[in-house]
Amino acid sequence: MKNELAVVLVSGGMDSCVAAAIANEEYRLAFLHVNYGQRTEARELQAFNEIADHYKAEKRLTVSIEHLKVIGGSSLTDTSIPVPELGSPQSAIHNPQSAIPNTYVPFRNAHLLSIAVSWAEVIGATKIFIGAVEEDSSGYPDCREVFYRAFNKVIEMGTKPETRIEIITPLIHLKKSAIVQEGMKRRAPLHLSWSCYQNNDRACGRCESCILRLKGFTGAGVDDPIPYEEIPHEHRS
Amino acid sequence: MKNELAVVLVSGGMDSCVAAAIANEEYRLAFLHVNYGQRTEARELQAFNEIADHYKAEKRLTVSIEHLKVIGGSSLTDTSIPVPELGSPQSAIHNPQSAIPNTYVPFRNAHLLSIAVSWAEVIGATKIFIGAVEEDSSGYPDCREVFYRAFNKVIEMGTKPETRIEIITPLIHLKKSAIVQEGMKRRAPLHLSWSCYQNNDRACGRCESCILRLKGFTGAGVDDPIPYEEIPHEHRS
Repeated sequence: MKNELAVVLVSGGMDSCVAAAIANEEYRLAFLHVNYGQRTEARELQAFNEIADHYKAEKRLTVSIEHLKVIGGSSLTDTSIPVPELGSPQSAIHNPQSAIPNTYVPFRNAHLLSIAVSWAEVIGATKIFIGAVEEDSSGYPDCREVFYRAFNKVIEMGTKPETRIEIITPLIHLKKSAIVQEGMKRRAPLHLSWSCYQNNDRACGRCESCILRLKGFTGAGVDDPIPYEEIPHEHRS
Repeated sequence: MKNELAVVLVSGGMDSCVAAAIANEEYRLAFLHVNYGQRTEARELQAFNEIADHYKAEKRLTVSIEHLKVIGGSSLTDTSIPVPELGSPQSAIHNPQSAIPNTYVPFRNAHLLSIAVSWAEVIGATKIFIGAVEEDSSGYPDCREVFYRAFNKVIEMGTKPETRIEIITPLIHLKKSAIVQEGMKRRAPLHLSWSCYQNNDRACGRCESCILRLKGFTGAGVDDPIPYEEIPHEHRS
């Protein structure tokens, strides 16, 4: 019998799918999805709902914060800025010296967490799970453990004295291949997840997010179950 | 010549009007208003625009986050919960031992700050002014200085390495009467501000926010220039 309720931030991507699988082992689930005007929102929302159905989430909430699109500053929300592809100068994946990639949505995760905390405080959830990844990632500043630690302090200071809510980042120090392995071990429905930044039907296989995902599956020695438009040679089995 | 740009969170109330007056002395102004589904939004937005016109704000942004209304948990966003009036058991003003009042919107200020930080990062603003008041207030946890200090750490950790944004809370330790005095000294357009939680035409004079405002004017020995439906006896001049 699980007593405590956890809010799980589920974008619909592979990482949040595995974070949900981990949360599901100890907590009752409240699934939260945030639409911030990203290009592939329709496909992400479908993945969110299918993963929520899979886990029979007790509560689900979808929130739209399209002001991040109005504010702009990112290729994920501004279609006039191209999404970087493998090896392009805008991509940070193969160039650890480069600045933050243009897919960074300024301070996005603070918005997601604020919504999660408000909801958690009202429904009485005690944990917030987020599938953020620090090491093997695009280098977003708001995906680092120090950010989440600082945010936990903000929650302590900014909610009612009797409220106890903590952010849990179970994947923060895992490599993508280890995330795939965690997912397989816990029977996470990875076939329902969606990571591509660019397409809604078949994943492009070229954007930052596809490359990171494919690298994870290749490293784990497992085939990615979702359809691709094109799989780069090194990730073909 | 003012070089740096500051985002000012302007609800349209007296405190944010005075915070804007203070910011205006040193910074170019980017006015931000957030609609979170509160009862008196239309009147607050009018006050915001009039104060922005008064200061000839260089940029202005209005954002709607009505999910706080969906999430609920507050009398300010849920019309089925009555707004406490003076002396009612739900009011915390005259009962410092009571819990957080039901006008507390769970973790609201974290949402406002997250929006302000994203916008500041994109437009290159270096400061965020917010007219939060700790001492002489309703006791909201997210109006305390410790909350803003913790949030500054989150900004440092969650934005680009080159980004420098700091939250400024010029009124945090002032009593309401001192805020009125600051406003008078800096010629803040207090006649354009709106504080009432309940009415859109004439302020009710009875809700928590009206009482705090009237107490400030009475304490400063100044008449409040806005129209009231009813002014409690102790605040009549």
